[in-house]
Amino acid sequence: MRGFRTDLAMERISEESGRLEGVNMSTHAVGGVKRTRIVIESGRAAKLLGRPRGEYITLECSDLYKCTPERRQLLIRLVAQAIRVMLPKEGEVLLVGLGNRNVTADALGTRVIERILVTRHLQETIARDMQGKLRGVSAIAPGVLGLTGIETAELCRGLIQHVKPAAVIAVDALAAFESQRICNTVQITDTGIEPGSGVGNHRLGLTRDTLGVKVIAVGVPMVVYASTIARDAMANLMEEYGVMNPEHPKAAERLLTQVAQGVLGSMVVTPREIDEMVLSVADLLSEGINLALHPALDADTLHTYLHP
Amino acid sequence: MRGFRTDLAMERISEESGRLEGVNMSTHAVGGVKRTRIVIESGRAAKLLGRPRGEYITLECSDLYKCTPERRQLLIRLVAQAIRVMLPKEGEVLLVGLGNRNVTADALGTRVIERILVTRHLQETIARDMQGKLRGVSAIAPGVLGLTGIETAELCRGLIQHVKPAAVIAVDALAAFESQRICNTVQITDTGIEPGSGVGNHRLGLTRDTLGVKVIAVGVPMVVYASTIARDAMANLMEEYGVMNPEHPKAAERLLTQVAQGVLGSMVVTPREIDEMVLSVADLLSEGINLALHPALDADTLHTYLHP
Amino acid sequence: MRGFRTDLAMERISEESGRLEGVNMSTHAVGGVKRTRIVIESGRAAKLLGRPRGEYITLECSDLYKCTPERRQLLIRLVAQAIRVMLPKEGEVLLVGLGNRNVTADALGTRVIERILVTRHLQETIARDMQGKLRGVSAIAPGVLGLTGIETAELCRGLIQHVKPAAVIAVDALAAFESQRICNTVQITDTGIEPGSGVGNHRLGLTRDTLGVKVIAVGVPMVVYASTIARDAMANLMEEYGVMNPEHPKAAERLLTQVAQGVLGSMVVTPREIDEMVLSVADLLSEGINLALHPALDADTLHTYLHP
Amino acid sequence: MRGFRTDLAMERISEESGRLEGVNMSTHAVGGVKRTRIVIESGRAAKLLGRPRGEYITLECSDLYKCTPERRQLLIRLVAQAIRVMLPKEGEVLLVGLGNRNVTADALGTRVIERILVTRHLQETIARDMQGKLRGVSAIAPGVLGLTGIETAELCRGLIQHVKPAAVIAVDALAAFESQRICNTVQITDTGIEPGSGVGNHRLGLTRDTLGVKVIAVGVPMVVYASTIARDAMANLMEEYGVMNPEHPKAAERLLTQVAQGVLGSMVVTPREIDEMVLSVADLLSEGINLALHPALDADTLHTYLHP
Repeated sequence: MRGFRTDLAMERISEESGRLEGVNMSTHAVGGVKRTRIVIESGRAAKLLGRPRGEYITLECSDLYKCTPERRQLLIRLVAQAIRVMLPKEGEVLLVGLGNRNVTADALGTRVIERILVTRHLQETIARDMQGKLRGVSAIAPGVLGLTGIETAELCRGLIQHVKPAAVIAVDALAAFESQRICNTVQITDTGIEPGSGVGNHRLGLTRDTLGVKVIAVGVPMVVYASTIARDAMANLMEEYGVMNPEHPKAAERLLTQVAQGVLGSMVVTPREIDEMVLSVADLLSEGINLALHPALDADTLHTYLHP
Repeated sequence: MRGFRTDLAMERISEESGRLEGVNMSTHAVGGVKRTRIVIESGRAAKLLGRPRGEYITLECSDLYKCTPERRQLLIRLVAQAIRVMLPKEGEVLLVGLGNRNVTADALGTRVIERILVTRHLQETIARDMQGKLRGVSAIAPGVLGLTGIETAELCRGLIQHVKPAAVIAVDALAAFESQRICNTVQITDTGIEPGSGVGNHRLGLTRDTLGVKVIAVGVPMVVYASTIARDAMANLMEEYGVMNPEHPKAAERLLTQVAQGVLGSMVVTPREIDEMVLSVADLLSEGINLALHPALDADTLHTYLHP
Repeated sequence: MRGFRTDLAMERISEESGRLEGVNMSTHAVGGVKRTRIVIESGRAAKLLGRPRGEYITLECSDLYKCTPERRQLLIRLVAQAIRVMLPKEGEVLLVGLGNRNVTADALGTRVIERILVTRHLQETIARDMQGKLRGVSAIAPGVLGLTGIETAELCRGLIQHVKPAAVIAVDALAAFESQRICNTVQITDTGIEPGSGVGNHRLGLTRDTLGVKVIAVGVPMVVYASTIARDAMANLMEEYGVMNPEHPKAAERLLTQVAQGVLGSMVVTPREIDEMVLSVADLLSEGINLALHPALDADTLHTYLHP
Repeated sequence: MRGFRTDLAMERISEESGRLEGVNMSTHAVGGVKRTRIVIESGRAAKLLGRPRGEYITLECSDLYKCTPERRQLLIRLVAQAIRVMLPKEGEVLLVGLGNRNVTADALGTRVIERILVTRHLQETIARDMQGKLRGVSAIAPGVLGLTGIETAELCRGLIQHVKPAAVIAVDALAAFESQRICNTVQITDTGIEPGSGVGNHRLGLTRDTLGVKVIAVGVPMVVYASTIARDAMANLMEEYGVMNPEHPKAAERLLTQVAQGVLGSMVVTPREIDEMVLSVADLLSEGINLALHPALDADTLHTYLHP
């Protein structure tokens, strides 16, 4: 492990670990989007990588938040497809938006929830020809512990006992290791949200263990630790000038980490353009999720339901 | 009953009903604020008035949303006192903000929740000398059925089983009968929130029956039905010109109601200045509620906790 | 004159005045939209009607803020066409959004400006094939006198001397006489904005006299005076029951006005749904204005420029 | 010069340059706040430092955006004092907020303008006993070039010809060199705003040259270039391990700059907590500016005028 924080499974897995026993990794490119599928199969690999067993789909695209309309449609379909494979075939779905709506870099979950087509309360009133086409969907963005006094996981537990969904989809802003991943990578996993993850560092996780149903997590990196920015540049420098002793790569790594953290502490940073990025990514993710939940609806009908 | 919608108990009670058997009503004025206490004691009176048995405190003040600093302090103390009398002496309290944050006239509940001192998650970490002084408080503004697919009452039920508060305080924007009451009247009651009430017309109520704990409701009128505006003016005109037949007051009432509703339908209106009104009233109510919950904290300490 | 305030020329003109000398009025319906063109030609008619000489186009549609996609496209084209006829063939255009962005009912001007394709600063950098297609457009929403200390007209005067536009398009939220016109009527006129008009009651007007260039004003009613709501219902009642003396219609009018204003004062109201209405109407108007200014651009290209 | 971008004069001046001919620099500490006064006197020093001749007051405080109430009052007084010394004794003042209200890290100017006591339009209507006490103040936050098509400097020029203020106070979010200065340093200068400065990189400056009146600029750093974060950590590392050749410090600097920029490009970052920081700093600056403009008003009276 490189010693810096990341919520992306793919950043945990270096080239070698791709060939690690118990880890399955495949990559292919479609129309400018790189799609990586990682399956962590063995408990031993899970422990080594510090990630739970399960499936991780990563979509990468260098201009994700301002790409062409065509690439945007491709990304929406890829998001929908990844979620649909993980979703139970039937049953209601509960969407949970994590994070703090008052902190722009942490507001992705809330912004996505605002754009979700909610149907649970409509089941009796919708048009005949729609019945059966619309899956029961409910959605909540309850706010962070500091504002509510209640852990999101606690709140969801009570809600799930009542709503009885077949699965939960949790949306959150993530922290990445490499600064160029901010707003350029989508991670979709069936392992849920882990404790300590996300921009706001959730104390409790949202997983099958804590909630009792399958939890699909959708996230996009919105912040990096400033110290990882420094470390990147330093490693680059040391490599280029042969400062790094190739026999002791770990020692060099430790040194870099110490220096970077010593100078910069735990400052967490986000791009200046974060306001626009969050809105654009929230649009993209919500379209992908709506499509995964209601595949029989075309875009126009969806739009009518969302903005009646 | 006058046939127009109101969420204020005091508008249901005309002069006579004040002397109705099973209803106790007393009024006194303090520093420009009129305080009315209504207790509906008998089931028969409850049925006649269309309001549940219980206590209703109403504070009226013609310039409530832009009064002098002195009157504002008085109102805060009166709000705190009314709530404190209704609150159980001990135990945690759950605050619930009703309404839709995206509809200015319906956002009062959300705006109050944002200003509440939440302490439930701090119980272990707060300073020694504060322990025992700070009551455990949690707070949530979950959003309306149309956006979440979940009734607020359903969501609260699950949450209460987990958080186990001694009481709930629910805050909501109300509808009034007389347009001059908008933002000029605070109602505090121990009967909870009724089905069909509020700006957004909740389908389920939040009461001891539905939630299993005492529910104190705090509300301020933010809208009126346009037809009540018309009816007011017409009644005034007919009275002045002797059009109203004193022997058939009910017939005249029916006529007025029909005309007003015929012309104006169910249009619900709010003052042009509603944005500013909501923020000002949310400040006032939240200060009153914070004071009721943490009477041992002075204003400065409260402020430190709210804005750390 | 009926004695109640309105910013709509068409509400000033009763059936008879349509046949008033010096006033030209024609109406036709297109796909559910009623389009009225009024031309006030003589100074005498202008004085009688209390409106300056010039052209007034009114588009009415009962569900303007939530109509079908087809009707929306029709409205956009009708708005664009009305503006294009009034616009000089060549030269830059300055857009001015009036009103207070913090008052939802008065925020239409600001919301439209946020959606305008601004090109003045791009003239040198845009792609060759676009040059000549994009008209030079600048846009400002300076805020109201109470927040800036500066009249919008004063500010515009200085700006116009510098920018030298061929015309100004001013967008504002209006007051109407009939409550059912709120958000259901668009008025486009080449007479500019008059003193005392709009939700916020501008002290100075924006006209050719004050600014030195042609001013096209685009507005939608967002508020009514509560007293006009009452007056409507009362007049209806009196008519139905023959209370009104047909020989003294003016006396009855005066009576109604006095009663309504006596009971309700100058309370100005807006619908509960105003937040959503403003956003929807701002989208519609800005699309119409963008189309009028850049007729050679198709919708997709426009979108690319607006969200690069 | 270190080759990284900064808008702070004090970051341009290393220990030595403090003793540079034509530069006067003095520092003293008051109650936890470090106050530095720099006067660049000669044209030669101005050229060397890349800053215009004039006075620069810098206030530093490690917890500026969440300090104790006492330190906050001290900072407000220090801001007010620095501005007052630079302000002409008499005449109106025009406040200009620079930056983009939709980009949190660039919204400081707009947020300060919203909190300014504007009085220019009140001169005739205010109470007798206030006349002479209230200076004529107007305020505008016109928005950035990309949204308006108009340079802020162009717009101000026209406005100044009309309003004829004795001075302009311009407020802007800055870029700093050292990441720990973000939200911890206030710079007040009588040299105005330079071209190319600020979070949004203004193309034209706001100075006496462009506007014709004295321009006092008030700014707080809100962003850093990611490459400066990396450079900091690398320099630290190289120093500690003796990698840097003491005989060629400039060569090492150049190397560091190249590496950092090569890896990170021109990414500009801001802390995750920027939303809260901007609001807190805007409160502080506006209180300081209001105090400088209306020294005869006590805080309570000011409050009454701001929230009537």
